[in-house]
Parts: sequence; C-alpha cells; structure tokens
Amino acid sequence: MHSFSELVVKFEDWFAANLPFPNAPSTLYDPCRYLLKEGGKRVRPVLCLMGNELFGEINADAWYAASGIELFHNFTLIHDDIMDKAPLRRGNPTIHAKYGMTAGILCGDVMSIYANEQVAKVKNALPQVLHLFNKTAIEVCEGQQLDMDYELRNEVSMAEYIHMITLKTSVLLACSLKMGALTGGSLGDNADKLYEFGKNMGIAFQLQDDYLDAFGDSAKTGKVVGGDIMANKKTFLHIHAQLHATTAQRAAIKYLVGGNYADKVQNMLAVFKEIGTDKACREEVARYSDLAFAALEEVAMPQKRKDPLYQLAASLLQREK
Amino acid sequence: MHSFSELVVKFEDWFAANLPFPNAPSTLYDPCRYLLKEGGKRVRPVLCLMGNELFGEINADAWYAASGIELFHNFTLIHDDIMDKAPLRRGNPTIHAKYGMTAGILCGDVMSIYANEQVAKVKNALPQVLHLFNKTAIEVCEGQQLDMDYELRNEVSMAEYIHMITLKTSVLLACSLKMGALTGGSLGDNADKLYEFGKNMGIAFQLQDDYLDAFGDSAKTGKVVGGDIMANKKTFLHIHAQLHATTAQRAAIKYLVGGNYADKVQNMLAVFKEIGTDKACREEVARYSDLAFAALEEVAMPQKRKDPLYQLAASLLQREK
Repeated sequence: MHSFSELVVKFEDWFAANLPFPNAPSTLYDPCRYLLKEGGKRVRPVLCLMGNELFGEINADAWYAASGIELFHNFTLIHDDIMDKAPLRRGNPTIHAKYGMTAGILCGDVMSIYANEQVAKVKNALPQVLHLFNKTAIEVCEGQQLDMDYELRNEVSMAEYIHMITLKTSVLLACSLKMGALTGGSLGDNADKLYEFGKNMGIAFQLQDDYLDAFGDSAKTGKVVGGDIMANKKTFLHIHAQLHATTAQRAAIKYLVGGNYADKVQNMLAVFKEIGTDKACREEVARYSDLAFAALEEVAMPQKRKDPLYQLAASLLQREK
Repeated sequence: MHSFSELVVKFEDWFAANLPFPNAPSTLYDPCRYLLKEGGKRVRPVLCLMGNELFGEINADAWYAASGIELFHNFTLIHDDIMDKAPLRRGNPTIHAKYGMTAGILCGDVMSIYANEQVAKVKNALPQVLHLFNKTAIEVCEGQQLDMDYELRNEVSMAEYIHMITLKTSVLLACSLKMGALTGGSLGDNADKLYEFGKNMGIAFQLQDDYLDAFGDSAKTGKVVGGDIMANKKTFLHIHAQLHATTAQRAAIKYLVGGNYADKVQNMLAVFKEIGTDKACREEVARYSDLAFAALEEVAMPQKRKDPLYQLAASLLQREK
C-alpha cells in the first residue's frame, strides 16, 4: 500500500514518460504540454490509483484510467478559464491568455479526446468504466453551466448550491475512486461505497474551501481572506446568511454587496458571525465528512488497506483521523 | 439494401426519437437541440449505416455509432464556428452568435461527451471502434489547427494542403464507413478498403468543392461564384496556380490578392485558365475518385451489396457510375 504523497510521485513519473501528445502541429500540442507541465495537485489520478490498490496491486488499467482522468480535468480547466476570463492558473498565464482563445478552445478539445483514448485502453470492465466516465464528464459540464447560471441570478437556494458543487467538483473525485475500483476488479457494492466516500468528501472539501476563504488564516491558505466576499460570490456562507438574516442584517448584506468598500470583508464577516454562519458552515463540513467516513467504513476491505484513504481524507478535511 | 436517401430518412427518425439530451439545465441543452434540429445532410451517420448494411442487416451498434459520429461532427461545427467567427450555419445564426461564446464552448463540450457515450454503447469490437473514433477525432482537431495555421502563412505546399483537407474532412467520412463495417462484424481487409474508399472520396469531394467555388454554376451550387477567391483562400486552385505561373502570371495573382477589385474573381479565373489550373483540378478530382472506386472494387462483397455506395459516390462526385 502506498500513501497519497508516494503515489503523487509515481504518477508524475508515469505521466511525464507517457504523455500521449505528438510534436506536430506544435501550435496545437505546445499549449497542451505547457499546462500539463505546470502540474497541479494530481488529486484525481491518485484517487484512482488508491481505489485500484485497495483491491490488489496497481494494474495497467489504473494507470490509463488515472491519466485519462487527469487529462479530462485539465481540459475542463482550460475551457473554464476561457469562460471565466481568468488570466492566471497555478501562478502562470492561462492558455488562452498566452496562446489566444482559439488555441485554448482547440487544445482543450484535443486534450479531452486524448483523455478518452487513455480510458479506452482499459481492459477490465471497459463498458462500465466508459459509462461512468462519460456520465461524470456530462455532470461536470452541467455543474459548470449551473455555476455560470447562478452568477446571473439574485437568489440561489442551498439545495441548488450543493447540487452545483456536487456536479462541478465532487463527482469527478468520486468517479476517480470508482474507476480505480472497477479496473481493480471490484464490481459490486464496494465500488459504489467508494463513490459515496469520494462524493461526500468532495462536498465537505468545497464547503471547507468556502469557509477558509472567509475565516481562514491567509498564512496557511496562501489566499487573500475574503476573495469570495469581494467578488459577491454565492457561496455556502452567503446563501446561509441570506436565509437566516434578520431584516436589519439583510439590509446590511445588501449594502455591503452593493459596493467595494475598504471594510467590506471585515463587516461582512461580522454579519456572518452574528448570524452564526461560520458555525453552520463548520457543522456542514463535519456532516459531509461524517458521511464520507461512514461510506468508507462500509467498504468491505481490511482496515489496513483503507488506511491511506482515511489519511488522505483527514488531511484534506483538516481534521484528526 | 437501402439507398442513401432512404437511410437519411431512417436516420432522421431514429435520431429525433433517441436524442440523448435531458431538459435541464436548459441553458446548456437548448443550444444543443437548436443546432441538431437544423439538420444537415447526415452524410457521415448514413455512411456508417451503409458500411454496416454491407455486411448484414443494420444492427443496434450501427445506430449508436452513427449517432455518435453525427454528434461529434456537430460538436466540431460549433467550435469551428467560434474559431472562424462565423455568424451563420445552415442559414441560421450560429450557436455562439445566438447564445453567446460561453454557451458555444460548453454546449460543444457536452455534445462531444454525448458522442462518446453513444459510441461506448457499441457491443461488437468496442476497443477497435473506440480507438478508430478517438484517432479520427484527434486528426480532425489537427486538421482544423493546420487550416488556421495555413491562413497565417504565405506559402502552403500542395502536399500540405492535401494533408490538411484529409485530416479536416476526409478521415471522418472514412471512419464513418469503417465504424459501420467493424460493428457489422467485418474486422479484416474489407473494413480497411472501405476506409480507403471513404478517404479518397472525401479528398475528391473537397477538391471538387474548390473547383465548383470558382468554376461552378451558381444556380446549381447555390453559392456565389468566387467566394474563395474573394477571401484569398489557399485552395487547390490558388496553390496550383502559384506553382505553375510564369513571372507575369505570378505578378497578376499577387496584384489581385492585394485588393478587393470589382473584377477580381473574373480576372483571377482568367489567370487560372491560362495556367491550366481548372483542368488540373478536374484531373485531380478524377484521380482521387478513381482511387476511391478502386478501393471499393476491392471490398470482397457481391457487387449488388456495394451498389448503394457506388451510387452515393457517383452522385457526390458528379460523375457517371
């Protein structure tokens, strides 16, 4: 059994040696290589490898599935960055900023096809693997669409928000684990429980991200505190506060949303605390974390084999195992 | 056995009844349905059905493969239209013109995933079918990239041009036929010969398109004569004329390319004729047509079963069978 960080190193090596892009046309493939060399945390492919190793030694299928997932994830980043007009990704210019929008669209397209080609090399349970992968890819697109739709709306319900982050973020984590399990020969309940584990872990992680953006320690997160508040993003915190605010608090939120005041973040945080939104968010993170750990508990494998997954979840969700 | 036009009707019925999109989010799926309802000639899916029927009754796999190919083709149209800044497609506003660029990118993405999901439902020879489909999809992206690259270059060789149109147009026609054959149980030489037939037919068709744009009868083609000349496109005609021009003819071409004169088309056509470019293009169409028919000849099936394919090629290439 390997830990998350051990598998990140192994995946980096395999991926660098097995990147499927040819050299020409360089106008198409240079941008692809540019993004992939910048790395990223490799959470998804490593989850796939971990899901695979739970049921035996990591096999060839798992490497193909893991690299397909990583290529798919990077393709979505390229196109999301165009849609969001983002200038930077991982501290470097985004592909469309560096190579132009046309290059961004087409190199995203071709990367998504290479993702399919990697997944198509899987031998175990190929139809199930493909169906899961395609279903998840569709959900990720739907999540991105809902995210953009919600930006234009005045009101978003909590159920809608959880649905959106589930599609946009969590299902790909869940899919990664389950593809590892399916290619590892686990076709029944265990694969589904792993999926539940990944999905709830993803939701908890996203809600924690919302929390840390507002209440985190910028020295630890590396982000400016209150970025979501400055951008008036409809996060868990914003939606919860709107739902539970008194008339006066609602007026305060409306005033703060309406301008870019120097003390906007500070005052919004004060309102959130008055309402108890910070506590509610921590509780929701804990609730989804509990659901995740309960699902992992039900995976019928020896505890020792599951240890790396427990440790990863505990570290991602910043809590004791 | 069915003719091309009979299969178009059958495909339209099947496709309308089996379109895989859900209703929500409507912001994502309305644009998808908008484009697909506008139709198109359905050449590619029907080639897949014809390739399948060559080896027996059309089976379920062929319908899934055919619809996957049609979805893939429409996805490329959506993204190409964004890259080409095209306002119209099939006489209607393009998706990005009607719904915005963001909708165009994302609905193209999700349509390509539905294409994969349709192809993944194939049962016969699934790994071979997937590999062919993905390889072709990659080539189509490369062809689009080369087309855009060549627009920015001063010189494009004839070999480069033929390579580009092969990737951008022909390989998907070839792939359609071969996917039909593979899902119909033909795994050997016959499937490859059908691929050759489709590829050469596609090249001949594209070269004929270049010819008709300049020398066609606008009453028959429905297009303004000389559109490519007005846009200074590097078609077969332009490249051939550059290659074989005298110094004086080269100067005339350079002068005509440099402006939008009222008699630009008329004068360029005169130069083309002086050089013999019109005749050379017709000869090249005939040469690739011959290659196509020779490949079809070698498909080891009774002549009668191949008749619909002969008739289709003859009609597309405007020549007697």
